[in-house]
Amino acid sequence: MTGFVGEHLAQFVVGSRWADLGLTVCHAAKRSLLNFLGCAIGSAGLPAIDTLVEVLRPVAGPGRATVLGRSERFDALNACFVNAAAANLLDYDDTHLDTVIHPTAPVAPAGLALAEEHAIQGAGVLHALALGIEVACRLGLAVSPGHYARGWHITATCGVFGAAAASARLLGLTSTQTWHALGIAASQAAGVVENLPRAAKNVGVGNAARNGLFAALLARAGWEAAPAAIEGRLGWARASGDEPKIASIMQGLGEHWEVERNTFKPYPAGIVFHPVIDACLQLRAGGLQPDAVRSVLVRGPSLLLERGDRPVGNARDARVSIHHSAAVALLYGRAGIEEFEDEAVTAPEVVALRGRVRAEADPALPVGAASVEIETRDGERLSKTVTAARGSAANPLSDAEIEAKVRDLAMRNPGCDADQMISQTWRLDTAADLRSFLSAAIPKNT
Amino acid sequence: MTGFVGEHLAQFVVGSRWADLGLTVCHAAKRSLLNFLGCAIGSAGLPAIDTLVEVLRPVAGPGRATVLGRSERFDALNACFVNAAAANLLDYDDTHLDTVIHPTAPVAPAGLALAEEHAIQGAGVLHALALGIEVACRLGLAVSPGHYARGWHITATCGVFGAAAASARLLGLTSTQTWHALGIAASQAAGVVENLPRAAKNVGVGNAARNGLFAALLARAGWEAAPAAIEGRLGWARASGDEPKIASIMQGLGEHWEVERNTFKPYPAGIVFHPVIDACLQLRAGGLQPDAVRSVLVRGPSLLLERGDRPVGNARDARVSIHHSAAVALLYGRAGIEEFEDEAVTAPEVVALRGRVRAEADPALPVGAASVEIETRDGERLSKTVTAARGSAANPLSDAEIEAKVRDLAMRNPGCDADQMISQTWRLDTAADLRSFLSAAIPKNT
Repeated sequence: MTGFVGEHLAQFVVGSRWADLGLTVCHAAKRSLLNFLGCAIGSAGLPAIDTLVEVLRPVAGPGRATVLGRSERFDALNACFVNAAAANLLDYDDTHLDTVIHPTAPVAPAGLALAEEHAIQGAGVLHALALGIEVACRLGLAVSPGHYARGWHITATCGVFGAAAASARLLGLTSTQTWHALGIAASQAAGVVENLPRAAKNVGVGNAARNGLFAALLARAGWEAAPAAIEGRLGWARASGDEPKIASIMQGLGEHWEVERNTFKPYPAGIVFHPVIDACLQLRAGGLQPDAVRSVLVRGPSLLLERGDRPVGNARDARVSIHHSAAVALLYGRAGIEEFEDEAVTAPEVVALRGRVRAEADPALPVGAASVEIETRDGERLSKTVTAARGSAANPLSDAEIEAKVRDLAMRNPGCDADQMISQTWRLDTAADLRSFLSAAIPKNT
Repeated sequence: MTGFVGEHLAQFVVGSRWADLGLTVCHAAKRSLLNFLGCAIGSAGLPAIDTLVEVLRPVAGPGRATVLGRSERFDALNACFVNAAAANLLDYDDTHLDTVIHPTAPVAPAGLALAEEHAIQGAGVLHALALGIEVACRLGLAVSPGHYARGWHITATCGVFGAAAASARLLGLTSTQTWHALGIAASQAAGVVENLPRAAKNVGVGNAARNGLFAALLARAGWEAAPAAIEGRLGWARASGDEPKIASIMQGLGEHWEVERNTFKPYPAGIVFHPVIDACLQLRAGGLQPDAVRSVLVRGPSLLLERGDRPVGNARDARVSIHHSAAVALLYGRAGIEEFEDEAVTAPEVVALRGRVRAEADPALPVGAASVEIETRDGERLSKTVTAARGSAANPLSDAEIEAKVRDLAMRNPGCDADQMISQTWRLDTAADLRSFLSAAIPKNT
């Protein structure tokens, strides 16, 4: 195929018709959006988001856009930043497993902000979300697995392209303007894996959402980018170390949709820890008493150890810790939000059990799998291997499970109306605008 | 040396004392700032900046910070973006030749915005500028030459660290907070060389200024980064492909200052084209008539050809074109702002002469050098080789030449008071605050 990557993607984004998406794509977009909303409102009252809002309040422009789960309204760019950061804060958002992109946090906020400002129909928002996720994940696939492995936080670096695409679509840009928007995004792709256990991670994701919209606004106004900003010799993909697989970016555009491959987490922890948690929960459900545990051996692919073999000092560490994940699942038979908060991190029984967990690489286990072996104080050995964790592509959360997750998250923000949010999301494709939809995500007591 | 890069740099930034800088460093910081101001006000009325201001106006927060050369006031973050983008727009800003970082555009805006908001003394602003430039350039040196060669626009990617350092200093952050600010900057380092001939370039530079300040504001509020966000295995330097030379980052901190190695351009074109322009101007001054030119052969190091052997369609192309640089210098005996604007780009005589320029790599010529060989219609051959272009480290612009450049730029923005700006910059170290200083950079007729 000839031509530029940005040009092809732009033509696709501009030319795509809602009617061509089909029901399953539409439904997948709704699941992604609902999960995103739950994550955003569930985190909106946490200290990190309070702090962020205080930092932005003096610099934010006139409040035309909803800050999800809060009473503040910010300008669209700053609202995008906060909503993306919040949705991603608890490591509870969605995952495109082939790239490990968490696509909705960077992509959805621009869509919501623009829909609110320009009274765009619900179907338009779902369509833009599907397009944005498509662009982010296709670029992610084209630079995987090297990109993430080298240290690029792919959610942020590819997310900015998705946000730009979604914004371009909703702003009604021409395909040339959209091409420029994607090129401007290439000069804004940032975020490093080293920062994943810290708040700096959320800065990368927040910027991806903000800067994607910014790119589209600049492109609409006439700012331009180089034709090959994505794939050129000195463009984004090669600068970040990858020879992009260009054919794969273009191939079958619109024939299948990456949003259908999006998955949703049952536990607010790094995705690689989910099979560990599942195995521990199953052992616990099988009758294992936490007091009886002498030692725990977790085996998994080397990726599991790279991501999760670390000291645990706070909630952020806990969400990316093999040891903590195993300990709380075995102790409490749960691995919900509370089990990854500071109180659980410092609880003596958790600290003690974490100390009895060991992790070991097992090259025989594929990515996404883990095995847990328990030795009890009686010398008994119990083990469980999980290859398709709950929430994985092979074992996806049902709509009802996503609803339950959203209700659980919404309990942390009681002024929000979870039932309303859920029912309106399922019928968003027929909504004339997003005002009443968004009102369910704003706490009523404020 | 043990410890983390961010930790060492933060301790340096926080612990540095103004009295230790010495007069030459102070003077170098003033030269950098004056050149920056001239570039910013000279570009402030160009269509690209008009457009940018129109994009940001609806989203900008309460106007506490000066937009240089314009009547608008924006919130500090958006003002940083515009001021950095404007200063860098014409490729006329300063150059740290060892890294090819243009350091003041990303670093100075945060200092000005914070000084304005917090009534900081002039010396504090100059000090923060020197510190920010030091951090940006030392990180740039540590990842050079691979970083830029691979496609990272080093002004933007390293500039964000410099902006974070300057902001941290002016906000009075602790060294731990400053360390976090530098780490948060690591998740915001973006910008690709492919985009250099387009406006997307200025997005990278604008974001560097904006996001450096943002990083410091977040760090002050308690947001954190990973300890090794800069040099860690999955941190910024390695993700972007470099093994950072860590020892060089720390070595001799405070003993010499990179701001003293900063250089200033006499021509608004890419720095590598300056010896070409010098050679052509010298040939012209020697009596060569443009009509007499049959052909022009430009020889230089391969870097010159990589950067400047391209078709010229607009002003941005012209500023990074060997052919255009040579043609206007030979035709007009000048290479000022007008000679790189669209009118000159499309002037028939320029188009014709550009077409008679050829470029050839000559590995015998070092970076920073070029030779120009003219064949006249009479068959005469004239040639000139320049190894130390005007404005280079070996042949720096004098203070008076910088003043003349600033006056020339200020003529494009007649409401600004160039004399006032110049005289106040030279005595900025004794200024109690920046209000009157900045007022000279705001057009009076608005």
